[in-house]
Amino acid sequence: PRSPEMKSRAMGVPLLLLVVLGSAESAFRAHRRYTPDWPSVDSRPLPDWFDKAKFGVFVHWGVFSVPAWGSEWFWWHWKGQGSPDYMRFMSDNYPPGFSYADFGPQFTAHFFDPENWADLFQASGAKYVVLTAKHHEGFTNWPSPVSWNWNSKDVGPHRDLVGELGTAIRKRNIRYGLYHSLFEWFHPLYLLDKKNGFKTQHFVAAKTMPELYDLVNRYKPDLIWSDGDWESPDTYWNSTDFLSWLYNDSPVKDEVVVNDRWGVNCSCQHGGYYNCEDRFQPSRLPDHKWEMCTTVDRQSWGYRRNMMMADVADEAEIIAELVQTVSLGGNYLLNIGPTKDGLIAPIFQERLLAVGKWLNISGEAVYASKPWRVQSEKNASVWYTSKGSVVYAIFLHWPENGVLNLQSPKTTSSAQITMLGIQKDLKWSTNPQEGLLIYLPPSPPSALPVEFAWTIKMTGVE
Amino acid sequence: PRSPEMKSRAMGVPLLLLVVLGSAESAFRAHRRYTPDWPSVDSRPLPDWFDKAKFGVFVHWGVFSVPAWGSEWFWWHWKGQGSPDYMRFMSDNYPPGFSYADFGPQFTAHFFDPENWADLFQASGAKYVVLTAKHHEGFTNWPSPVSWNWNSKDVGPHRDLVGELGTAIRKRNIRYGLYHSLFEWFHPLYLLDKKNGFKTQHFVAAKTMPELYDLVNRYKPDLIWSDGDWESPDTYWNSTDFLSWLYNDSPVKDEVVVNDRWGVNCSCQHGGYYNCEDRFQPSRLPDHKWEMCTTVDRQSWGYRRNMMMADVADEAEIIAELVQTVSLGGNYLLNIGPTKDGLIAPIFQERLLAVGKWLNISGEAVYASKPWRVQSEKNASVWYTSKGSVVYAIFLHWPENGVLNLQSPKTTSSAQITMLGIQKDLKWSTNPQEGLLIYLPPSPPSALPVEFAWTIKMTGVE
Amino acid sequence: PRSPEMKSRAMGVPLLLLVVLGSAESAFRAHRRYTPDWPSVDSRPLPDWFDKAKFGVFVHWGVFSVPAWGSEWFWWHWKGQGSPDYMRFMSDNYPPGFSYADFGPQFTAHFFDPENWADLFQASGAKYVVLTAKHHEGFTNWPSPVSWNWNSKDVGPHRDLVGELGTAIRKRNIRYGLYHSLFEWFHPLYLLDKKNGFKTQHFVAAKTMPELYDLVNRYKPDLIWSDGDWESPDTYWNSTDFLSWLYNDSPVKDEVVVNDRWGVNCSCQHGGYYNCEDRFQPSRLPDHKWEMCTTVDRQSWGYRRNMMMADVADEAEIIAELVQTVSLGGNYLLNIGPTKDGLIAPIFQERLLAVGKWLNISGEAVYASKPWRVQSEKNASVWYTSKGSVVYAIFLHWPENGVLNLQSPKTTSSAQITMLGIQKDLKWSTNPQEGLLIYLPPSPPSALPVEFAWTIKMTGVE
Amino acid sequence: PRSPEMKSRAMGVPLLLLVVLGSAESAFRAHRRYTPDWPSVDSRPLPDWFDKAKFGVFVHWGVFSVPAWGSEWFWWHWKGQGSPDYMRFMSDNYPPGFSYADFGPQFTAHFFDPENWADLFQASGAKYVVLTAKHHEGFTNWPSPVSWNWNSKDVGPHRDLVGELGTAIRKRNIRYGLYHSLFEWFHPLYLLDKKNGFKTQHFVAAKTMPELYDLVNRYKPDLIWSDGDWESPDTYWNSTDFLSWLYNDSPVKDEVVVNDRWGVNCSCQHGGYYNCEDRFQPSRLPDHKWEMCTTVDRQSWGYRRNMMMADVADEAEIIAELVQTVSLGGNYLLNIGPTKDGLIAPIFQERLLAVGKWLNISGEAVYASKPWRVQSEKNASVWYTSKGSVVYAIFLHWPENGVLNLQSPKTTSSAQITMLGIQKDLKWSTNPQEGLLIYLPPSPPSALPVEFAWTIKMTGVE
Repeated sequence: PRSPEMKSRAMGVPLLLLVVLGSAESAFRAHRRYTPDWPSVDSRPLPDWFDKAKFGVFVHWGVFSVPAWGSEWFWWHWKGQGSPDYMRFMSDNYPPGFSYADFGPQFTAHFFDPENWADLFQASGAKYVVLTAKHHEGFTNWPSPVSWNWNSKDVGPHRDLVGELGTAIRKRNIRYGLYHSLFEWFHPLYLLDKKNGFKTQHFVAAKTMPELYDLVNRYKPDLIWSDGDWESPDTYWNSTDFLSWLYNDSPVKDEVVVNDRWGVNCSCQHGGYYNCEDRFQPSRLPDHKWEMCTTVDRQSWGYRRNMMMADVADEAEIIAELVQTVSLGGNYLLNIGPTKDGLIAPIFQERLLAVGKWLNISGEAVYASKPWRVQSEKNASVWYTSKGSVVYAIFLHWPENGVLNLQSPKTTSSAQITMLGIQKDLKWSTNPQEGLLIYLPPSPPSALPVEFAWTIKMTGVE
Repeated sequence: PRSPEMKSRAMGVPLLLLVVLGSAESAFRAHRRYTPDWPSVDSRPLPDWFDKAKFGVFVHWGVFSVPAWGSEWFWWHWKGQGSPDYMRFMSDNYPPGFSYADFGPQFTAHFFDPENWADLFQASGAKYVVLTAKHHEGFTNWPSPVSWNWNSKDVGPHRDLVGELGTAIRKRNIRYGLYHSLFEWFHPLYLLDKKNGFKTQHFVAAKTMPELYDLVNRYKPDLIWSDGDWESPDTYWNSTDFLSWLYNDSPVKDEVVVNDRWGVNCSCQHGGYYNCEDRFQPSRLPDHKWEMCTTVDRQSWGYRRNMMMADVADEAEIIAELVQTVSLGGNYLLNIGPTKDGLIAPIFQERLLAVGKWLNISGEAVYASKPWRVQSEKNASVWYTSKGSVVYAIFLHWPENGVLNLQSPKTTSSAQITMLGIQKDLKWSTNPQEGLLIYLPPSPPSALPVEFAWTIKMTGVE
Repeated sequence: PRSPEMKSRAMGVPLLLLVVLGSAESAFRAHRRYTPDWPSVDSRPLPDWFDKAKFGVFVHWGVFSVPAWGSEWFWWHWKGQGSPDYMRFMSDNYPPGFSYADFGPQFTAHFFDPENWADLFQASGAKYVVLTAKHHEGFTNWPSPVSWNWNSKDVGPHRDLVGELGTAIRKRNIRYGLYHSLFEWFHPLYLLDKKNGFKTQHFVAAKTMPELYDLVNRYKPDLIWSDGDWESPDTYWNSTDFLSWLYNDSPVKDEVVVNDRWGVNCSCQHGGYYNCEDRFQPSRLPDHKWEMCTTVDRQSWGYRRNMMMADVADEAEIIAELVQTVSLGGNYLLNIGPTKDGLIAPIFQERLLAVGKWLNISGEAVYASKPWRVQSEKNASVWYTSKGSVVYAIFLHWPENGVLNLQSPKTTSSAQITMLGIQKDLKWSTNPQEGLLIYLPPSPPSALPVEFAWTIKMTGVE
Repeated sequence: PRSPEMKSRAMGVPLLLLVVLGSAESAFRAHRRYTPDWPSVDSRPLPDWFDKAKFGVFVHWGVFSVPAWGSEWFWWHWKGQGSPDYMRFMSDNYPPGFSYADFGPQFTAHFFDPENWADLFQASGAKYVVLTAKHHEGFTNWPSPVSWNWNSKDVGPHRDLVGELGTAIRKRNIRYGLYHSLFEWFHPLYLLDKKNGFKTQHFVAAKTMPELYDLVNRYKPDLIWSDGDWESPDTYWNSTDFLSWLYNDSPVKDEVVVNDRWGVNCSCQHGGYYNCEDRFQPSRLPDHKWEMCTTVDRQSWGYRRNMMMADVADEAEIIAELVQTVSLGGNYLLNIGPTKDGLIAPIFQERLLAVGKWLNISGEAVYASKPWRVQSEKNASVWYTSKGSVVYAIFLHWPENGVLNLQSPKTTSSAQITMLGIQKDLKWSTNPQEGLLIYLPPSPPSALPVEFAWTIKMTGVE
């Protein structure tokens, strides 16, 4: 439990901030208000749009895109851990005394065209896009008044990246989310609080809270993807205070979605939907809405200049993950890292377009779908989704003999079976031992609607 | 015809240069010597390895990799043509007065690992690699003594790029070629000669000839890919002098191959093999060995940061071009442009590896093959090669009904038909109207040996 | 009068800060305590050392030393006023979008050797040195925890400039002062408070107060040279709160001296000694200790690369100002601006050494002197100081006839007259009309002890 | 003696170059022609203007002005000698692999205003100005066609520094000289010739000769200040070929002056006037016109950022050297080094202006003067010059008793003695033991016309 002294100070902060950074909606609403504690905050229903969206694009962009080496944790590996590899990288390539802040001016975003990015994300079939508004390095991709000279307006791009991308994304009716790291590896006030065993909140008062409120009031995000919470309790972060304000009084109180990273032991326990771990893949259907986040470059979320093909997820692998995630009730958030000059590497364009091409045919089985009674066949190469009475079976391997064998669906007399992207009904039969046998079309590779993960649509099955 | 004065000066140059830059093999050889005129030089047989190699990788790398925008002709578009786009690019991103030479120090090649490149090129199935030793910008990727402070040892990488890549390439028994531009857009001595109607040869004496001799003596290239010849006659360039030395006395006289860009009207007429135009695609079998050069980024040979997927040739397209080129007796030289820091973009890695994967199965029909009696079926979707009595038919579209129909081969009683990558013989029949009908295996997509351009191998056909 | 709400918030800040940034001496002292109001704070006696010191060196160093053009107000002229000259300077020399923060990494201080500076300052005869800890640009020359990534440890020098210079200065028993600007032109929280008519104190709470307390606790300065106060009242700045803490409880409470720039209408009215205006020159003896600050480069306090000799004060002029200031009871604080790489231009070295050379002979009439009964002769070319019963007359022009005529001193029978730097007594006489006539030594120029401003020492005069 | 082969090659070069770089005056002149050998070349009379000029300003400016550390021999100390200090300087301040050529783009000359420089040089009283057109680093301060991308037009300033300064200098009727280094420390062709024991002349043919001819034809210098000759004989450098062309046929054949650094053993033996060593100070009157070159910063000719006052010659010292040099029949060439951004440090401005101020009064005894029968009095504190029957005695120390004693002049009845800058005649007497006694005016220091080196003008003495 928090000390009374702490509590009063913590509560004071939002009041101060509302004066500072925006105007609060103070009028009482008819609807029930949330109180700043987990039982109340956790009780809020998840806005509908999120579960329907299924597929989002995650964008990691920041000063780490300048060295573009190792990963977006560059600064930490270099200065926090003193990793020899990183120290050698710096001494090989930069003059002595070169600091991380010195990378700032090179984050030019010269070629950043938000319309172009938004076109790509739309073509990928994403229904939401999440941008790193601020990563653990503390550099804000918007002109935060409490991050002077360490933000994208004062240094480097000299642009409001969060704002510009948001405008372009929303023109296309895509939802816009903002990633925000609670902690900052090297902020002196954070280090001071840490030294004090998180019994002081200088950093939270001076940086975290003002910035979260500012982000919400300024950009009205549909989603807040919180991170960097794990070193300290949610009471240090004022998490429930913030969330109750967000749900009661913020300009996005009706539509906003948040994840579960709000302090030690929150992940997979509290907040909005659950991310649990990065790249989380549950083995059975969870009872709470969740999201799997992963990244095309398997080694890094931020852009790495020295990315090799061996590190890049291939198209089949990505689509298989998406299929499995959706079957298990999750959303799939696929990450790419733009370059320091604001470009998205062709390999990432190619992967996103491949997903879009697949969703173009198969989206019916994905968007707004629900998990079915059964999630997958035993061999895990067939995954189910449903929509009302329709059941979709997405199979990852084309059977050698051209006959797809499904154990789970029980056919009725009115059963009808097709393949998405192909006009004609498929023939099928049942068999006590093998269950449902579906005779796939004998098309040559080039005539198939998609290259991997073909979807069987079934009505009249149970 | 050249004036006697010009001739004597021109002839004097190589003598001087041999003293300067290397030691000549002066001993007379038993073999016949070539004289410095086209009939003699053209009469030299093409060394055997080149026709067998079929597939090479072309690498455009230089100071143009620093702006990495537009194309490797950046300097020309900017300063030669005064293109508004290029002028705006410069004024938007650089301080006033920034010159092309100022890009030099940023050509760092920090990550250049020649072993890594060579591994990739080997995995692509290439049998030769051609690097731009010097492009039209005049910057030499080796420490040329006549290009002081405008070469990769004095400026930027501070390394001998030509030498380092050569060593790595040869460890893998891949042939090593060097691209060399005869002219340099902005070299003051070239501009002087040009102003003089190419009646003086200050530039040739001071730069072109010394560098060509130096390249040959120092790196012993298997191939010289000449370019930048088109503004002036071969007599200005001293081309036949150089080639006769190359064929008679140079350290690579037995193995070296050259192309056909040695002066106005030389292309497609004189030299070694013919390139004719960039991306040359003859409609029928040429009677002279040729090579098609093309580039994965359809818009540029040098790296462009703002390359979009729409500009990138896809795998099927590349393999179809390779197949067509080999059927028509050509070699296929596929270009990629590394970045200023010495990396090969993942999209290029992916394309090269895709070619390698295809050649791994289909290389039997490519390497050391010869054109067949017929090059292609009418619809141009089946292409033939041969090796001794074996005939290969490479088909680009899988027939809807699973039956491949070939008009040209005449079967004999001993005819045997297989598909490369598949063990079992294929069934076939003939039919007076349709010719040879081959019953393709009913495999699912994932079971096929390759994804595009499947190869039928036939023995006992004529 | 401040609103109660404001007051309580304002008072809370130091409490918070003491926790944050240092430890307070909490034990009650025997001495009387100052209360946070001007009558009390103004009543504190000025520590003795300051009046005795007479001559100090002022050092303006910061990010403005990077453009080093115009003046240390570069940023303001460029972005605050939009001066065409400054905008042209930027567009001529930097790429579009280059920001002031982008200058930060170029403030290298490569050659900064504090021992070397301190040697120079000692040789100049200075008894105190005042460094800009933070100018209006907000960049702190020490690792301020509330100026993250905009301080000399994170950016540019990567050193604690305030600390390093302080250590070197104190080794030589010179007093160390810190210049601190209350306001910052472009700090977003300052701009917010300003927009709010200074009814909020976000900036003071987040930046000004934490930094002032930090400076005092960390470096224990002998002098705080406050500036940048003029846009808002001292109640906004919490000035009397800070000063009462400084005088009651700070680690420097016994020795510290401050000036008078603590809010609108404070200058020349409140605080410690008075600066009044820059380059203040009273026409008669003030009744409050004061200091004249001026700069060798008459056009700028910060280094300007394009300084011309016409802008540089010459040695005679500087010494005349020093003499006049001391006669009128002031201290003389002479400014130089080091370069971005931490060097002091030879012309500044020369001027400081000239002052030191002069003080070496004439210091007796300067250090620890008091104003005399009369300050100067009518023509203002002779200035008086005194020490006990000794009177010093410093004359700026050598009389043509070699006889110095003083109206003010009244000789007694025991009167004895010498010239500093010369052994023998001087002859003199008196005369009803002309007063005291002193016969100067007939030395050639090279034999005189100083080149300008010769000092006559008189005992037995009244 | 040179080998015939060498000779013919050497002679061929100018012919080629005249075609390349300019038009020759081919018409035969009435005047005698010089042959390319020392006896002939040395026999040319020195154009009159040079001896009359007496005082010139030397300007060392180049890429060495970028590191601006150590001296203009930076590159050599660093890379030629591997001096640990220089290697440490580089590793402390630059990234690994940073090369000397990488300094080029930082040589911005942003503030270079040739009119402003020329005003300063005029105010210094200089009658000629010598600029480093090319120092040992090989970087040409003009757009040399044989120094592509290593000249001030292609790299750094992007301006023709030699041309711009020349235009401004000549507007003021000051003579314009060009310093030119024959050798270049690191030019690969020079290193090749050196390795060949200077039996080849690749470097001379490709660089030295074309540039010397180009300089003369393009800028028509009044003076060529040759340097960098000492590693090889004048026959290697083609010196007499060049000089005979310069004297016979060049556009400056009538007015041009050269010095004596044209090959091993030339210095103090051959050429035009003699420099002998740097800072040459003969003890008695030489029988050949000479010039003393020296530099205000005693440690370096190029700008050094870390110049300390202890290294800077003071005004008295400079004027004493000038006086002594002129008395001994020499010219005095005083060097300053501008900064990389084209500014002349105030300390250098001050020194030059001090010379100008002194010459303003004393120039009558300097310009167009001739050595007198006697050069100095024994104690070397009085130096003589003459002009027709007028004798000037310049004394460096003001005698304690106000009486100047000269041993050498023999007075006649018509003798008249004044001091330059003072109207009235001086009283004098003679005395068998002491010679001439001149009674100096009893002026106070401020009333003297100059601060040091006062000039006595005498007529009617012998």
